Amino acid sequence: MGTYSTFDPWVILREGFDAASLRESESVLALGNGFIGMRGNLEEPTAQGAPTVQGTYLNGVFDSAPIVYGEGAFGYARNHETICSVADAKSFILLADGERLDMSSSRTEAHRRVLDMREGTLRRYFRWRTPAGALLEAESVRLVSLTRQELAAAGLTVRCLEGRCALEIRSPLSPAAAAEADSSDPRTAAGKDRRLLTARVLAEDDVLAMEQRTRNSGFTVCCAAAHRSGLPHTSVCTDGGAVWTAHADLSAGQSVTVEKSICYLERRGELPDGLDAAADICRNAPALPELLAGQRQTLDAFWEAVGLEITGGDALLQGLRFNLFHLFQSVGRDGRRNVAAKGLTGEGYEGHYFWDTEAYILPVFLYTRPELARRLLEYRHSILPQARERARLLGHAGALFPWRTIDGEEVSAYYPAGTAQVHIDADIAHAVWEYYAVTDDLDFLAERGAELLTETARFYLDLGFFSEEKGGRFVINCVTGPDEYNVLVDNNVYTNAAARENLLNAARALELLRESRPEEHARLIRELSIDPEEPARWREAGERMYFPAPRDGIWPQDDGFLDRQPWPLDSIPADRRPLLLHYHPLDIYRRRICKQADLILAMTVFSESFTAEEKEKNFDFYDSVTTHDSSLSMAVFSILANGIGRSEKAYDYFTASVRLDLDDAYRNTKDGLHMANMAGTWNCVTKGFGGMRLKNGMLYFDPKCPAKWDGCAFRVRFRGRTIRVHMDRDGAAYSLLDGEPVTILTPAGELKLQ
Amino acid sequence: MGTYSTFDPWVILREGFDAASLRESESVLALGNGFIGMRGNLEEPTAQGAPTVQGTYLNGVFDSAPIVYGEGAFGYARNHETICSVADAKSFILLADGERLDMSSSRTEAHRRVLDMREGTLRRYFRWRTPAGALLEAESVRLVSLTRQELAAAGLTVRCLEGRCALEIRSPLSPAAAAEADSSDPRTAAGKDRRLLTARVLAEDDVLAMEQRTRNSGFTVCCAAAHRSGLPHTSVCTDGGAVWTAHADLSAGQSVTVEKSICYLERRGELPDGLDAAADICRNAPALPELLAGQRQTLDAFWEAVGLEITGGDALLQGLRFNLFHLFQSVGRDGRRNVAAKGLTGEGYEGHYFWDTEAYILPVFLYTRPELARRLLEYRHSILPQARERARLLGHAGALFPWRTIDGEEVSAYYPAGTAQVHIDADIAHAVWEYYAVTDDLDFLAERGAELLTETARFYLDLGFFSEEKGGRFVINCVTGPDEYNVLVDNNVYTNAAARENLLNAARALELLRESRPEEHARLIRELSIDPEEPARWREAGERMYFPAPRDGIWPQDDGFLDRQPWPLDSIPADRRPLLLHYHPLDIYRRRICKQADLILAMTVFSESFTAEEKEKNFDFYDSVTTHDSSLSMAVFSILANGIGRSEKAYDYFTASVRLDLDDAYRNTKDGLHMANMAGTWNCVTKGFGGMRLKNGMLYFDPKCPAKWDGCAFRVRFRGRTIRVHMDRDGAAYSLLDGEPVTILTPAGELKLQ
Repeated sequence: MGTYSTFDPWVILREGFDAASLRESESVLALGNGFIGMRGNLEEPTAQGAPTVQGTYLNGVFDSAPIVYGEGAFGYARNHETICSVADAKSFILLADGERLDMSSSRTEAHRRVLDMREGTLRRYFRWRTPAGALLEAESVRLVSLTRQELAAAGLTVRCLEGRCALEIRSPLSPAAAAEADSSDPRTAAGKDRRLLTARVLAEDDVLAMEQRTRNSGFTVCCAAAHRSGLPHTSVCTDGGAVWTAHADLSAGQSVTVEKSICYLERRGELPDGLDAAADICRNAPALPELLAGQRQTLDAFWEAVGLEITGGDALLQGLRFNLFHLFQSVGRDGRRNVAAKGLTGEGYEGHYFWDTEAYILPVFLYTRPELARRLLEYRHSILPQARERARLLGHAGALFPWRTIDGEEVSAYYPAGTAQVHIDADIAHAVWEYYAVTDDLDFLAERGAELLTETARFYLDLGFFSEEKGGRFVINCVTGPDEYNVLVDNNVYTNAAARENLLNAARALELLRESRPEEHARLIRELSIDPEEPARWREAGERMYFPAPRDGIWPQDDGFLDRQPWPLDSIPADRRPLLLHYHPLDIYRRRICKQADLILAMTVFSESFTAEEKEKNFDFYDSVTTHDSSLSMAVFSILANGIGRSEKAYDYFTASVRLDLDDAYRNTKDGLHMANMAGTWNCVTKGFGGMRLKNGMLYFDPKCPAKWDGCAFRVRFRGRTIRVHMDRDGAAYSLLDGEPVTILTPAGELKLQ
Repeated sequence: MGTYSTFDPWVILREGFDAASLRESESVLALGNGFIGMRGNLEEPTAQGAPTVQGTYLNGVFDSAPIVYGEGAFGYARNHETICSVADAKSFILLADGERLDMSSSRTEAHRRVLDMREGTLRRYFRWRTPAGALLEAESVRLVSLTRQELAAAGLTVRCLEGRCALEIRSPLSPAAAAEADSSDPRTAAGKDRRLLTARVLAEDDVLAMEQRTRNSGFTVCCAAAHRSGLPHTSVCTDGGAVWTAHADLSAGQSVTVEKSICYLERRGELPDGLDAAADICRNAPALPELLAGQRQTLDAFWEAVGLEITGGDALLQGLRFNLFHLFQSVGRDGRRNVAAKGLTGEGYEGHYFWDTEAYILPVFLYTRPELARRLLEYRHSILPQARERARLLGHAGALFPWRTIDGEEVSAYYPAGTAQVHIDADIAHAVWEYYAVTDDLDFLAERGAELLTETARFYLDLGFFSEEKGGRFVINCVTGPDEYNVLVDNNVYTNAAARENLLNAARALELLRESRPEEHARLIRELSIDPEEPARWREAGERMYFPAPRDGIWPQDDGFLDRQPWPLDSIPADRRPLLLHYHPLDIYRRRICKQADLILAMTVFSESFTAEEKEKNFDFYDSVTTHDSSLSMAVFSILANGIGRSEKAYDYFTASVRLDLDDAYRNTKDGLHMANMAGTWNCVTKGFGGMRLKNGMLYFDPKCPAKWDGCAFRVRFRGRTIRVHMDRDGAAYSLLDGEPVTILTPAGELKLQ
């Protein structure tokens, strides 16, 4: 294991051992492959007093429990869904001369851990002086396979540098411990018992295996680990688990190595022969070098597709790579799993999927790995039945997607900042359309996309109404926009703008299919019972969408926003932030203050609908009333700031968000990494500094390299092409790396790349 | 026991036995004295399949439990408080020839139960053919003493009419059974285990006694029963309770009588020697005839003070008397207990005190038994410390009274229809001022009233602000008015009007005390740290209070009301009412629809602030958008209808509400009687038909006798006088029955009564 610098842009280095920041490092050093996620837990249990969140997660595997309401009401979400930590197979326990290794009491030195973002591994190194005086050197490596979804692996080498030592290595397979939870913080998982039940355990020569069941949600999980060491060993079942144990007497210069391959299988329902299947997969799994080669190959391809370069900003480049690496590790790849708000790095937000996916994360993949973007949309299509049912329960036509969910059921227990966020439908519709525009994937539009557009458009048409009081415009009342500090408002600008686009694009999609895929069009009309007049009604609602009138150039982000009581940001003490943890919701809602600014988001996403002057004026106003208590906020401000030539502001917001988790800026990285913010920083580079957006179906760029950088580059996929954009102080350069010639737009006009 | 007719206005008669309506009859036939409440349960347990709510309650005695939130947030109410049924001492169990009496299987006939509203008793009669062929006649009587708060009594006589019979009479003292609860209906108590724990039991000759403790709230309750019968008997402790048992062999013509006196003592904390004290009180309690005489005397005085007469409307008079009787039975008399939303008749709304007291119930007592109104305000003053603490927690000055509570702590688990109903402060302030205006009780104003006015005024001044956007007017945003179908609204007209009055009256009260009680005034200034400028600021906020501007003569009940989507009442199917049980809150909140109409309430309470034309126009509009899903709604519509000469509408709303519980119109009388509606019907008679209101500090009447009645009369107390108002087709007559001459106002001008 080599040496690394703190801001080496390819690795994340953590040196020494600090109990207080252990949980935070576990999130930062997590590994995953979109299915399996492993927190960066130390191999061995930590001493009491060093708080840890032991976690191995399977994306989409959760337990459920009825939501208890102090006062219930009709149509409330009925169940919690909570991601649960499955059997732990990644640990090793070391005993030397009778002492059990414990970072808080053993005599260790030179401890360092390295997350390698090109190799897809977590490596660790330390030396250990045993009670009998021997000096040991330990190196471990861990990976979650990027080539085989069900596999992970871990290796451990212990070398004796001085003296002699009786070494014992244990590799346990244990049911997960119950996680801690702070029920007063709505952003963490509430304190529900979500430990899985152990159904069967197997300990056989080199192999340990365990079958677990969730308590209420009906999942079966099988985990196995197969060991390779050449050492004498035993495998036995223990209290609730199993353990593989080997012994070795080491003299100076001697070393031992243990490797294990780990397998997870899961199914909602029974998993017949799952235990044996998992054991077999482990036994026959590729050895560590082969898996490592696969990691490298996959990541090389990923980093090439991303093509990210920053000259003169290593710490920021490291932050960006870190963000993209974790996004890539967390994204579901099979159309059945999505990206949780914390990815697979922790239990914050209970492992739920939010609008974060479509509004922040999906574009990253759409422009770099479009097939993954398609998988995310396939997931949404797969939960359409539940979304239709939810709309019906709420008395509406079409489909209403859940604000937060794992399996498609709405599980938000606080509807004002949950079900009321009906913009989720339009966010999905927006992603469907953008996916089509960037990929030309007419098959998807015909098979799934048009159905999503239709059902969401139906929902909005039914939700709003043409208001006589508002001159016959189409209004949408009593919703919550993304900004959760202003709830149950009328005519939220972002929601209305997104719904308008949804309504218009639904009609456009049907039109397009009618022309180019008449058979598919006919099938849709039939299967969805689309009335011939329906698209015209969507169009009418979209075209007559109401927006609150600006006052002195300031757009109210909803009908009542400007009438709320001002609350100067500098009058709020630092120790009373974020507001949501220190003020009653009513105190917050009645103020003219934002968690994130919906109007700024609207101006960013629907850039063409606002003039440059409007953007400038409103940027300053909303900048002065936004707390950024949501990690989704700063990236959006950064992008708009770029769009209006406020480069310094743009850069400041970018730097404040790009290392948000690496620097634990929100002090809750321990609960997991902020996926949407991480994606937001890629959006800052491409849509912000790169000025990228779709314009009349073409790709538009207006690059402005931050003054502090010598240069910056990124790559995007667009309709089968790979385009590289480079910007520096002298301007921008575009190159077509792959694919047919294509015309792009720049402020100077059209530009043909070939 | 005599015979009665269905609409005898002095009694409530229930004949036969119908398992399906048992629970409803238990509420209707409940007895109480403001401290003890006993549901009208049959003496003997009912068979399985006959749902019953066994209940004996002590006003203010509750158990608590932490509120569990699916998603919590800062400042949420922390605990449930739930009235709990204490030891049951009112029962008798009869066994004849080995058969245990059970109304659903025994051969009974002529069963009838009578709530006598002049005698303050529940009497029962039936005949019973035993398996061996004997014919028995049973009569029982039950009372909750109106002269001795801690006492109740029950008597049972069994006579053999034919044959012979071996009779066994058991009188059990049992811990209460767990109550059923429907957690999907927010109006009932949620399913919490609130059975008390039995601490000690005593069974000694004629006396049974039990000491109970609540699980979490720290109450001790001691109950004892002493029996008189002259029969051979035993008293033994049983599983969790005790039972007194007597035997008698009866031949035709023979009879036996058992009487018991019952005592309840309670204290928050330990109750040393409480068990013995309760037993002693029972042993020495007055015999039944003496208690009955006390009931009669107390009720004669009450009915005389009320002086209610209706000629030509017996069923309605019966309804009105029923309502007043239960209010009198439910009102706390010691300044520590209030009136629960269901009185002491059931467990709906968990025994909580709401604004119902000040807005509906208190006026009934203020104008008939003003000392009881004072007790209710003393209760509010006693919970000022908690109200101050609540305001502080929410970041506000002054005091915010809890929306629902028993001991002063806010226990609403759904703040949009709880804490957000900040009008509770102004409701209390209104009652304080009206109490002073009607009684001239300057002592109370100095000792407690001014403090209540000050702290509530401080709250509103801090809650609202002078809005530049609204021309410098004082606005109050993000509140919920009484109408719970429109939550978190801006500038609710009722709230703003009530707050205005509060702000102005707080300043007025201090002014008045400064002039007439300078020492008290100085003490208040000192103790409450009242800044010399403060009253002027209250006055400024009150005088510059903002109200949404009418559109085409229609007042929006809040800033956004007229912009919501219309929802014609006749388009809502009957089986989807009340809306709150069949639609998601969001579906309701975004519509232009009311549970009760706040604007109509404002026009009723603040009558002088609106013109007759405005009232007429707005009455029709709000009449067309109000569901009356709140039982507090119709009485208010009736009063305003009278005020604008819509006598038929007024009469219809009155008749629909006056027998609401007697006819189980809302189908939830089983959970307890609707106290506020009951009080509302008295308000209909006095303030509606009688046109009574305060005007420039004088009493104003504008009587309009409903066309269907030959005549109607009522009495009110006003500044030491008793005034009788009589109205019939020919007009009105006023007489001074008691006290110094007084001048009243009528449409014809001033009128001096002497």
